[in-house]
Amino acid sequence: MTQDFGFTLHNSDGMARRGTVHTGRGDIQTPAFMPVGTVGTVKGLYLDQVKDAGADIILGNTYHLMLRPGAERMDRLGGLHKFIGWDGPILTDSGGFQVMSLSALRKISEEGVTFKSHVDGKLFEMSPERSIEIQGLLGSDIQMQLDECVALPADHDTMKSAMELSLRWAERCKTAFGNQPGKAMFGIVQGGDNVGLREQSAQALVDMDLKGYSIGGLAVGEPQEVMLAMLDVVCPILPTTKPRYLMGVGTPQDLLRSVAHGVDMFDCVMPTRSGRHGLAFTTRGRVNLKNARHAEDTRPLDEGVNCTASNSYSRAYLHHLIRSNEMLGMMLLSWHNIAYYQHLMAGIRDAISNNNFAQFAEETEARWAAGDIDAL
Amino acid sequence: MTQDFGFTLHNSDGMARRGTVHTGRGDIQTPAFMPVGTVGTVKGLYLDQVKDAGADIILGNTYHLMLRPGAERMDRLGGLHKFIGWDGPILTDSGGFQVMSLSALRKISEEGVTFKSHVDGKLFEMSPERSIEIQGLLGSDIQMQLDECVALPADHDTMKSAMELSLRWAERCKTAFGNQPGKAMFGIVQGGDNVGLREQSAQALVDMDLKGYSIGGLAVGEPQEVMLAMLDVVCPILPTTKPRYLMGVGTPQDLLRSVAHGVDMFDCVMPTRSGRHGLAFTTRGRVNLKNARHAEDTRPLDEGVNCTASNSYSRAYLHHLIRSNEMLGMMLLSWHNIAYYQHLMAGIRDAISNNNFAQFAEETEARWAAGDIDAL
Ligand SMILES: [Zn+2]
Ligand SMILES: [Zn+2]
Repeated sequence: MTQDFGFTLHNSDGMARRGTVHTGRGDIQTPAFMPVGTVGTVKGLYLDQVKDAGADIILGNTYHLMLRPGAERMDRLGGLHKFIGWDGPILTDSGGFQVMSLSALRKISEEGVTFKSHVDGKLFEMSPERSIEIQGLLGSDIQMQLDECVALPADHDTMKSAMELSLRWAERCKTAFGNQPGKAMFGIVQGGDNVGLREQSAQALVDMDLKGYSIGGLAVGEPQEVMLAMLDVVCPILPTTKPRYLMGVGTPQDLLRSVAHGVDMFDCVMPTRSGRHGLAFTTRGRVNLKNARHAEDTRPLDEGVNCTASNSYSRAYLHHLIRSNEMLGMMLLSWHNIAYYQHLMAGIRDAISNNNFAQFAEETEARWAAGDIDAL
Repeated sequence: MTQDFGFTLHNSDGMARRGTVHTGRGDIQTPAFMPVGTVGTVKGLYLDQVKDAGADIILGNTYHLMLRPGAERMDRLGGLHKFIGWDGPILTDSGGFQVMSLSALRKISEEGVTFKSHVDGKLFEMSPERSIEIQGLLGSDIQMQLDECVALPADHDTMKSAMELSLRWAERCKTAFGNQPGKAMFGIVQGGDNVGLREQSAQALVDMDLKGYSIGGLAVGEPQEVMLAMLDVVCPILPTTKPRYLMGVGTPQDLLRSVAHGVDMFDCVMPTRSGRHGLAFTTRGRVNLKNARHAEDTRPLDEGVNCTASNSYSRAYLHHLIRSNEMLGMMLLSWHNIAYYQHLMAGIRDAISNNNFAQFAEETEARWAAGDIDAL
C-alpha cells in the first residue's frame, strides 16, 4: 500500500525546521533542495549523480514538458518517472510562471491562460483544471496550483488582483486534484512585496486546508531583505504541520537565510546554469573557473564536498575545459554545484537537529565571506 | 622498469591482423579504435566511460593542446595524462593536419610551418623538431612525425612534393625523437591517391626502420574504394612486425574493411561528433534519433551493445533529449557510439583470433544492411 502524503516535523531551532515530507514514492528530508530537471533532465548530469549527491526529489517543468514531449504522450510513455528513470518523488510547477516568462501572445482571463508555444508557435489554453490534469498525466507527486505571478516592482492593484485570481484558481485546483493517495497539491502564496496582500493570501490558503504551501512571486527581482521580510510575514501564518516551499530560490545564502525564516523546500536552476558558465559555489564562496588564476592550479575545486567533480579534477583542468567551452567542463561544474547544494542542505539539517543552526549559519557565512583559497 | 615499445602479431586471417602494441603505459589490443580527446577530453564522456567501453588508448590533438593550455604549461602541470586523468597510453598527432585545416595564414617551407592560432590569432612556428618537442612535453606515448597532408583530389606535382617533404621531415623527426623507452614515433605514409607515390613513401619510411607506420592523407574526400586501393598498395610494403595506423578513419564500415586490408589502429571524431547530432551507430546500422518514429518507442537503442547508454534509456527519451538540444542526449549518444565502436573492434579481434574474420565481416555488414528494428 502506498505511503500517504504527509509531513513530520522533527525539530525546530528558532524558525528553522527539520522535517520529513512523506510521499508515495519515498521520503524527502527537509530542509531540502530540489534540483531542476526542466525538460526531464537535470542539465548535464546523470540522474545517478543527482541521487548520489543526496537529492531526494527533483523538479520537472510543466510548461516545457506539456510542449515537448507533450502531456498525453508522456502518459502513454508511462509517465515522467519512467521516461527519465527516476523512481523518487517529483515535484512539478503549474506551468504558469513559464507561460508568463517564455511564451508569446499570452492572455490571462478568469478561465485561465492562453499562450503560444515558444517551441513551435502552437496555441495552448491552460485552465487551473487543465494544469492539474497535465501534472497528473506527467505523474507528478507534488503538484502546484496554477497561479498568476507578477514581476516586482509592481503596483498594488496588479499585485492584488493577481493574488485574488490565484486564490480562486487554488480552489479550482483543489477540487480538480481531489484526493490522490501519496500525492499532494500545494497552494501558492502570492501578494508581491505587500505585507497585507501576503497575509491575506496565506490566511485564505490555510483556510483551504491544503497539503502544503508554496511561496511564489519572490526572487523575481527584489532585494533579498524584501524576500526575507515577506517570509517573516507568511511563515508564521502557515501551519507548522505542513511543508513550506519557497519557489525558484536561490543562491546558497538565500537558502541558508530562508531556512532561518522557516522554509522547508527550495528549487533553483542556479547550480546547473552557473556551472555551465564556469561559476562554482563552494564551501569558500563563489569561484569563477574562467579566472586566469586557476590556469596552473593543480588543487581540486573543493575538498570540503564529497563529490568526484569536487575532488578528483584539478582547477587547472576545469579552467581549461571551461575556457575551451567543452561539455565536460559544464558537466563537472554542474555536478559539483548540485553536490555542494546538497552538502549545504545536509549541514543545515544536521545543525537544526542539534539545535545548533544559528552557529552553523554564522560559521557558514563567515567561511563564504573569507573567500577562496589563496592563489598558488 | 618501463615496458619497451613493441608489437606482437598474434594471428593473421587473410590480411587482417590480431596483435598487441606494447607501450610503457600498457598494452593496446589491436585492431584498436582510439577515441579522440581533441583538447584533453573525449567530448561529452567521462574517461571512466571511455575506459569501461574497452578503449586501451586515446588520442590528443597537438595543435589544439599547444594553443591551449600550451605545451610548456602542460609540462609544468605534469603532462597530459595527469592533467586529464588517463593513465593508459595516449597517441598524439603532429599538429600538422589541423594547422592546415583550422589555422589562418599558414605558410609551409622546408623548415616547417608558420601559422596563426584560431583561438587568439597568435603567430606560431612549428618545425618537425618542435612538433616532436611539443609531443614530448605533452607526455605522448605514440607520437607522429610532422607531415604535409593534401586534400584530394590533387594534382600529381602537389602530391609528390608534399610526400617528399614529409619524408625529409620524417628523418628530422626520427632524429629529434631519438630513443625514448616505452614510447614510439611513427612515420606517415603520404602520396595521395597515386600508387607510385604511395609505394615510394612507404618504402622510404620502411628503410628508416621506424617503430610504427601511419597512413595519412586518406579519408580526405576520396571514395572508400580509393582508400582501400591505397591500403592494398601500402600495407604489403609495411613490415608485419610493426603496427599500422590509418589516421582519421572512419565509419564502422570503413574500419571493418580497412582491417580486412591490414590496418591495426584507427582514430576518428565520428562517434562523438555524430552522437552530438543525434546519430547513433548500432549493430543494425545507423539510427537517427531525431526521427519522429522514435517519439513513442520505449525500447532501448541497441541491446547488442553492453553499455548503459545503449540499454537503459528508451529511444523515446533519447529522441526527446536530442530534439530538446539537451546535453544529456549528446552525452548518451556519444557514449553509446564510443561503446559501439569498441564493441565492433572487440568482435573483430575475436574473429581474427578464431580465423573467422571473413564470415564475421560478412555477417556484420549484412546486419547493418538489414537496418534498424521495425518501428512500433
Ligand atoms: Zn527576518
Ligand atoms: Zn582490396
